[in-house]
Amino acid sequence: MTVSSSAPQTLRGSGPADQALRARARQVVPGGMWGHLSVEANQLPANYPQFFASGEGPRVRDVDGHEYLDLMCAWGPMLIGYRNPKVEAAVRAQLDRGDTLNGPSARMVELAELLVNTVAHADWAVFAKNGTDATSTSCAIARAATGRRKILKATTSYHGANAQFNPFVNGTTPEDRAHIVEFAYNDLASLEAAAARHEGDVAAVIVTPFFHDGFGDLAAVDPAFARGVRALCDRLGAALILDEVRTGFRLDAAGSWEPLGVRPDLSAFSKALANGHALAAVTGVDALRDAVTKIYLTGSFWAQAAPMAAGIATVQEVVATDAVAAMRTLGEQLADGMRQQAAAAGVGFVASGHPAMPKIRFTDDVDSIDRATQFCFTALEHGAYLHPWHNWFLSSAHTPDTIAQVLAATEAGFQAVRDRF
Amino acid sequence: MTVSSSAPQTLRGSGPADQALRARARQVVPGGMWGHLSVEANQLPANYPQFFASGEGPRVRDVDGHEYLDLMCAWGPMLIGYRNPKVEAAVRAQLDRGDTLNGPSARMVELAELLVNTVAHADWAVFAKNGTDATSTSCAIARAATGRRKILKATTSYHGANAQFNPFVNGTTPEDRAHIVEFAYNDLASLEAAAARHEGDVAAVIVTPFFHDGFGDLAAVDPAFARGVRALCDRLGAALILDEVRTGFRLDAAGSWEPLGVRPDLSAFSKALANGHALAAVTGVDALRDAVTKIYLTGSFWAQAAPMAAGIATVQEVVATDAVAAMRTLGEQLADGMRQQAAAAGVGFVASGHPAMPKIRFTDDVDSIDRATQFCFTALEHGAYLHPWHNWFLSSAHTPDTIAQVLAATEAGFQAVRDRF
Repeated sequence: MTVSSSAPQTLRGSGPADQALRARARQVVPGGMWGHLSVEANQLPANYPQFFASGEGPRVRDVDGHEYLDLMCAWGPMLIGYRNPKVEAAVRAQLDRGDTLNGPSARMVELAELLVNTVAHADWAVFAKNGTDATSTSCAIARAATGRRKILKATTSYHGANAQFNPFVNGTTPEDRAHIVEFAYNDLASLEAAAARHEGDVAAVIVTPFFHDGFGDLAAVDPAFARGVRALCDRLGAALILDEVRTGFRLDAAGSWEPLGVRPDLSAFSKALANGHALAAVTGVDALRDAVTKIYLTGSFWAQAAPMAAGIATVQEVVATDAVAAMRTLGEQLADGMRQQAAAAGVGFVASGHPAMPKIRFTDDVDSIDRATQFCFTALEHGAYLHPWHNWFLSSAHTPDTIAQVLAATEAGFQAVRDRF
Repeated sequence: MTVSSSAPQTLRGSGPADQALRARARQVVPGGMWGHLSVEANQLPANYPQFFASGEGPRVRDVDGHEYLDLMCAWGPMLIGYRNPKVEAAVRAQLDRGDTLNGPSARMVELAELLVNTVAHADWAVFAKNGTDATSTSCAIARAATGRRKILKATTSYHGANAQFNPFVNGTTPEDRAHIVEFAYNDLASLEAAAARHEGDVAAVIVTPFFHDGFGDLAAVDPAFARGVRALCDRLGAALILDEVRTGFRLDAAGSWEPLGVRPDLSAFSKALANGHALAAVTGVDALRDAVTKIYLTGSFWAQAAPMAAGIATVQEVVATDAVAAMRTLGEQLADGMRQQAAAAGVGFVASGHPAMPKIRFTDDVDSIDRATQFCFTALEHGAYLHPWHNWFLSSAHTPDTIAQVLAATEAGFQAVRDRF
């Protein structure tokens, strides 16, 4: 069965309220929006709304009142459902007492204890606001611990938007990345060569748990590569930094490389840690504890109590409900369903990556995302908010039923691709 | 009348609950706490609590249930009272709808419009989370606009904790500050000389509205210096960045240099903008609008709706109640009262700086803060949370009555200094 043009439809997408807000925004915000949430900068389909009014469970609603089953999860932060009742109750209880105060609250200790008990490698934690805070703090800790300068990262891997890691050079200087050394992901020889070129000066290797950058398919880490990174860091006395900003608590609550038996020295968390409340964390091993006390880490809101209360409730709920397993199962239902639909429609299609963070590609899209854009355009009209080139994010607020509804929207999307191309 | 040892007292300060949390924190957070909120790193008096339970209006309560009239205002963020009813109602109303979503909410546009209408120089705004986000974004905009590299800053002025500006070198590399050039605050000749050394390569001058760094007295900006900075930036085609992270909305809602008639090209706001909710903003002039669209600015939580709702409520309330005038009057009452008490006690004492952000110094404290520490220790026992060497922050939630209560505590503080030294 296909959901064709004869099926009941509500035309969704950017409407008059969204357009009016965009016009106002262009007056008072350069370009109308910045960064990864700009529909224009992200080359999102023409019908995608820029402004949102609300979220609940697995659904978001745009400012024109259209509701979507959401597979972007606010680009990762939403893990166990928009306005998850347990998380929001914890936030409100804390806001009733205090949030930003003259020092931390007991929530900081409780959350640090919870992370130490949940994340396998963690002996301690410190907190911040942004993912970039967490990755840059991790690098600073590694440099302070080793007295060395070089940070080895995979080419095209995104580790934040500060000057050191920003994928765009505008606004930065060459010196900002003077000590960033690149290697190829999953290529141990290239990593070894990069390290050899800077013998005695390697402070850290920073790496994402799987390859999730650029416009190609996602790629799981080669277990031999992960073990090789660990061995190289051990040999050099360098820190292995696992950048879990995008992956944290979606793949494995104990750490995304825990199933491989490979433990990092430092992990950078943010996005999903507090289910949408602004929080970041670095967890680390005892050997790096002293180095943390030797650097100056701070931010006006880094000890805020309410996001830490949200973090506690989120991590507890992820563990108690095995949200990781739920997201994997839901993601498999989604990816398998799309693969079957694509085959039935005779459309070349790849869903790559971990089921909880899948990415789509149409094999006939060569140097373009035309088919992916048509697919997402049509799916949006049918009530599913997807993304044509960035990985998606499952949440445990989805159910087999909502995934079936998403699959009705993707069915229409595949049909549109087949009809148009 | 003096509040002496015969006056009724409640012994306040770090108690068993605080000590127990400190012991737990030392296990799971390196050093037990990081940055400016660490009572140990800040050399705060021995009785100062590390952990806080709640705040209301002008008061904070520690985890042992001791209440203090607070003159640190969470190190600045609290502007119109802890848990200000209007701000908290706006936050809850937004949390009832959504916070971190797939794009911004209408709150972003409303807040940007409000800042453009409130901050005199502002033609646009972009938002982030940390003060450091705002200062580093301002520098990136200036570099992108000019194609130049050098950022001129005053020696010892604090502009954030990222690698470029961090006051401590541990964890950074020399290249991180390769393009930071220093001058002396209020010394136009030194600024001109710094600019001349880097002719053709000055992207921006970043400066705080008044001198508030180091251990000496605060110093107002010399109006001729402020005008000179403006003239130099105009001559060079460099951006004048006013770092309002600490001062914003406490000295003048239209901008802290507005009374001088000197307008910056970019202003960096954070701390008090949303009365304790995590928000930062850069406001700028039209000439820099295009540059913003050419750099990659982003953060997972930078479009969060609830802190923007808090920012709208805060700025509206500051303007509607003339909170700035209230803080000035309350601050004058406090500083004048302390000066009279110090004179009566025969203790050499300076309260420097703007009344809304005063700083104390005991003239006989030479290369030490012994008297200031005793003063704050005793004031804390008497129910006022002060700071021995950092500037304080007034809030409009104080009243003449609460300031009189603070003055009863400072009276005891001066007596203790006189008795001990």
